[in-house]
Amino acid sequence: MTNQTPPHFNCTAIIGIGLIGSSLALALRERGLANKIIGIDQDADVLARATALNLIDDAAPSLKAGVSDADLIIVATPVGVIGEIVVGLREHARDGAVIIDAGSVKGVVATAAATLPERLFFVPSHPVSGTEQSGPEAGFATLFEERWCILTPLERTDEAYRGAVDKVAAFWRAVGADVDIMDAEHHDLALAVTSHLPHLIAFTLVGAADDVESVAAGEVVKYSAGGFRDFTRIAASDPVMWRDVFLNNREAVLEVLGRFSEELAVMQRAIRWGDGKALHAAFARGQVLRHAIVEAGQETASPNFGRDVKSDEGPEQT
Amino acid sequence: MTNQTPPHFNCTAIIGIGLIGSSLALALRERGLANKIIGIDQDADVLARATALNLIDDAAPSLKAGVSDADLIIVATPVGVIGEIVVGLREHARDGAVIIDAGSVKGVVATAAATLPERLFFVPSHPVSGTEQSGPEAGFATLFEERWCILTPLERTDEAYRGAVDKVAAFWRAVGADVDIMDAEHHDLALAVTSHLPHLIAFTLVGAADDVESVAAGEVVKYSAGGFRDFTRIAASDPVMWRDVFLNNREAVLEVLGRFSEELAVMQRAIRWGDGKALHAAFARGQVLRHAIVEAGQETASPNFGRDVKSDEGPEQT
Repeated sequence: MTNQTPPHFNCTAIIGIGLIGSSLALALRERGLANKIIGIDQDADVLARATALNLIDDAAPSLKAGVSDADLIIVATPVGVIGEIVVGLREHARDGAVIIDAGSVKGVVATAAATLPERLFFVPSHPVSGTEQSGPEAGFATLFEERWCILTPLERTDEAYRGAVDKVAAFWRAVGADVDIMDAEHHDLALAVTSHLPHLIAFTLVGAADDVESVAAGEVVKYSAGGFRDFTRIAASDPVMWRDVFLNNREAVLEVLGRFSEELAVMQRAIRWGDGKALHAAFARGQVLRHAIVEAGQETASPNFGRDVKSDEGPEQT
Repeated sequence: MTNQTPPHFNCTAIIGIGLIGSSLALALRERGLANKIIGIDQDADVLARATALNLIDDAAPSLKAGVSDADLIIVATPVGVIGEIVVGLREHARDGAVIIDAGSVKGVVATAAATLPERLFFVPSHPVSGTEQSGPEAGFATLFEERWCILTPLERTDEAYRGAVDKVAAFWRAVGADVDIMDAEHHDLALAVTSHLPHLIAFTLVGAADDVESVAAGEVVKYSAGGFRDFTRIAASDPVMWRDVFLNNREAVLEVLGRFSEELAVMQRAIRWGDGKALHAAFARGQVLRHAIVEAGQETASPNFGRDVKSDEGPEQT
């Protein structure tokens, strides 16, 4: 875990060229971590765009055609298909290949990865970074900088596997991330709090806004700067990716959702009873927590996220 | 409502020099809309800072001392104290004074304003703009640009009042806002959807994150880029202002909160039942709504609100 030398791979196969896959391709190129990058995607159009963007050196339409030479295999697909990809890797990946994913749920990935033979080294990974955009055009090389990447290694004690974990940690550090290691179960609960529940709430709020008949959709749009627009960013994230997260982290999400609903009932009662003291005490917690997040380098200190600053320097729009 | 000439005031009194008060002071100065600005605040320290920042020409510790010369009086306080300020204005404001507020709830303001004599012209206003920051240092002159300001005029039919409404509309346009006019009841429901409920949800999520014992506060901070951090922006807003919003817009907030809770129960069941189709359909709505908000100029198109762009051009930090 203390390996600080950037690793180097001869051939990297990236399965799924979306936001994460394309960002990793760009980061690998920029930092010279791979001699060759092979892109694998079910969608021929995505592969053509990835080639045109010079994200990949070769495009492969199938796992079989793409992974056989790879010493690093990156599975950057929605969580729901990782199981079937693992089945394909068992057959087609070469001896000694290091495999990582980037999924937001780790329990199901660990279960799938545990079925692989010892000759393959799957180190489940979750870079806690992203944007609301998707597709090969959405990627940028600095996506992982100053963000945490959580590794949830398998229960393997062989030295070769421990070496692979070190190598994967060094890989994530080389693309700018800080690395944490924990077990998959704890990851899935912690991320249910910091990522899955917030997304569920944002998706729900968007749905609820549709539902008040006497407030027109146009009004929701016009007056969204009152707060609503903040929620639409993460509610604009890839629906397939998020469907898979909730289908595969059900227990933890239902657990933290229960806590949220209790808290919401407490707030509702404070409003109904006109309990200003309780409301003030609850509201005052927000500034403390935000200050801590800004201090930790996980958020900008600029008002309104700095979104009001006119700038042409942002990542290109798709 | 079609008056496009910027109005000019001889003496403007601003009661409450927070984010809105200081931003209006700066906008008034920048656009030359007032000969003189008098600041009124209970807090002597705030007045001293506002003077040092050159936001105001004169500081007054009380309504009586500050409003007697003003032909424009801006009440930029939390909603909860507007009632008692109206009582003071009845006694101390000069004949013909135009009065506006900037409160996020309009029903209670209309009720208070209706007690004023005909010689005073209170036009309840709500600029739907702001940041999570507060205090006189938080203001900036462009806060209202490209944002909507909603006027909810009183039920007065005299021509002088209609003239005052036109003048107030022209004032808000002069500081960069677009103006809508509606009744207070509809405002309070529409803003419950687009602003009050989102704030309540954000405050609640911050509280719920505290509650999962096995996830440390430090982890909530570290992995907040997974989505949670978005909610902390509006949860960092002024707790007094928001306490007053919920105490004064109870019915509408409880109504839209009921809609939200129903929607959340539907989502919860879809997760429990593993209904991927329902989840996908619900999640896909987010992109449509966000696209509409970006198109309407109420949000940046940049990924992550553009917050990842390093820039020194933002409003100064406090």
